Amino acid sequence: MKSYSELLQTINKKISETTYGSYPNELYEPISYMMSLGGKRLRPVLTLMACDMFGKDVEKALNAALAVEVFHNFTLVHDDIMDNAPLRRGKETVYKKWNMPVAILAGDLMMIKATDFLCETESSDIKSLIFLFNKTAREVCEGQQIDMNFEVNEKVTHEEYIQMICLKTAVLLGASLQLGAMIAEASKEASEHIYEFGKNIGIAFQIQDDILDSFGDGSVTGKQVGGDISSNKKTLLLIELLESAHKDDKKFLLELFKEQDQNIKITEVLKLYDKYQIRDFAESKKQTYLDIAMKHLHAIGLEKAKTEILEKTALDLMERMS
Amino acid sequence: MKSYSELLQTINKKISETTYGSYPNELYEPISYMMSLGGKRLRPVLTLMACDMFGKDVEKALNAALAVEVFHNFTLVHDDIMDNAPLRRGKETVYKKWNMPVAILAGDLMMIKATDFLCETESSDIKSLIFLFNKTAREVCEGQQIDMNFEVNEKVTHEEYIQMICLKTAVLLGASLQLGAMIAEASKEASEHIYEFGKNIGIAFQIQDDILDSFGDGSVTGKQVGGDISSNKKTLLLIELLESAHKDDKKFLLELFKEQDQNIKITEVLKLYDKYQIRDFAESKKQTYLDIAMKHLHAIGLEKAKTEILEKTALDLMERMS
Repeated sequence: MKSYSELLQTINKKISETTYGSYPNELYEPISYMMSLGGKRLRPVLTLMACDMFGKDVEKALNAALAVEVFHNFTLVHDDIMDNAPLRRGKETVYKKWNMPVAILAGDLMMIKATDFLCETESSDIKSLIFLFNKTAREVCEGQQIDMNFEVNEKVTHEEYIQMICLKTAVLLGASLQLGAMIAEASKEASEHIYEFGKNIGIAFQIQDDILDSFGDGSVTGKQVGGDISSNKKTLLLIELLESAHKDDKKFLLELFKEQDQNIKITEVLKLYDKYQIRDFAESKKQTYLDIAMKHLHAIGLEKAKTEILEKTALDLMERMS
Repeated sequence: MKSYSELLQTINKKISETTYGSYPNELYEPISYMMSLGGKRLRPVLTLMACDMFGKDVEKALNAALAVEVFHNFTLVHDDIMDNAPLRRGKETVYKKWNMPVAILAGDLMMIKATDFLCETESSDIKSLIFLFNKTAREVCEGQQIDMNFEVNEKVTHEEYIQMICLKTAVLLGASLQLGAMIAEASKEASEHIYEFGKNIGIAFQIQDDILDSFGDGSVTGKQVGGDISSNKKTLLLIELLESAHKDDKKFLLELFKEQDQNIKITEVLKLYDKYQIRDFAESKKQTYLDIAMKHLHAIGLEKAKTEILEKTALDLMERMS
């Protein structure tokens, strides 16, 4: 089986060779810019890895892998507008570098191109690939809307939070793997297990991301630390804090939501996170979903060496981000 | 052959029976709202009409027709954000009734659902349908971007203007017809002629739309009269005025672009349109494209009765809008 870095090279080569269109330049330049910002290319690598795992040449899954990465970047372009985010991978977001209409339109075109690339896959059952891809795309939109709802909802439960990150982030990781498995003509059962593996890794991954937003190193992640706290975002950390904080601390926390000085706000919320061991809580939740993921991976019954590579890849990615 | 009103009833029934999803309601309610605003349903009727014309049951083309209408409405939802438009069909636009993030996301989901519906078409060549659909979708985005570029470009020629409206509006009318023809398994030649018929009707249609924006009755069109003038939009009318106006009038016109009082601006630009017979010029351009469209329609060589119905439909639509 090919390693992560080999597959990363394969997809990066494909991305660097891909053109999206030329006229008008104002529309296509932001797309090339966004696609050139790099990133871990996690999703397309998973598509290639699953195809490889089930014994087919990764070339077969290359267009689907590209589709998944272009789709993911489309969601980022639009999310950055909605979240009013200035930076993405340490660089200006499309809508800050250009403007909002260009970012809307470039995103739209990326979504269309993603379907185009998927359709270039040679498969006897292209309809099933599109069906999975579109179902996932709908779910990602639903997840983003639920996430936005959380900003105005007074109470959000752990379960609602997990459902949201499942839709917004995790299903795409599951689908990335399943597309690769389907292209490699894996059994229905195996392709469903690999989906569940990816989905649960995705949930763990997002919990990790939330942890890093409060406890990470901005110079490594390329994101503003404390962004979630600053925007009163109901992450698993904040939801748990709201549930476990004593009366006076909760009252103080609710006042902090209105605090205008972002440095004070972030510092004080982090103190509360420490006091109630919120990081430990989140790490333990993360582990729960990692365990479920591994169960599904083992249920496929692949050779031990292949299972170990996928297991190691997942854990490495977690490690690399912390 | 079925009449426009029969086909309109068929597509309206289909639309009223269609659900797009339920959770989260904040995402799906705007989609149902937008789809219920009505309109002429021109594009899906054309899809059904082409299928009928080439001798197949319109039921076969119903999902493709729905796809085309949902796609068209997706572009309207996003265009209304970019154009900062308050009204659509006499009702509040999605982004005014809800907000910008909801309008972005609801539009994204509509684009995804459009592909879903298209894929539900029973066809031996689903890939060709998706290819045409996606090519058209890309062109519509390109057209919208070029239209936005026109706002900042100092000089726009007639040719550039026609290319823009071709991409932004006309190709979708052509594709709506061609999809119906392809589903009915018409010959390649015939399906290309019907595309060209639709495309050229579309160009005429858009010129008509521009004429109505300046000379129409707002209570009939459901739009603000003079909106294009107000935003200095380079329509065929304004481009021709810029080219034909004498030195002093042109200077006055350029000053009017900066006029803050919209009533004065609209009134004075309309006076210049009258002085230089700009409406006559635009009507004559419109006729040119109508003539090209009819040539392509006749080249298909269908029975006279069928050709006449399609010809009458096109002219009726023009009439109804004036």
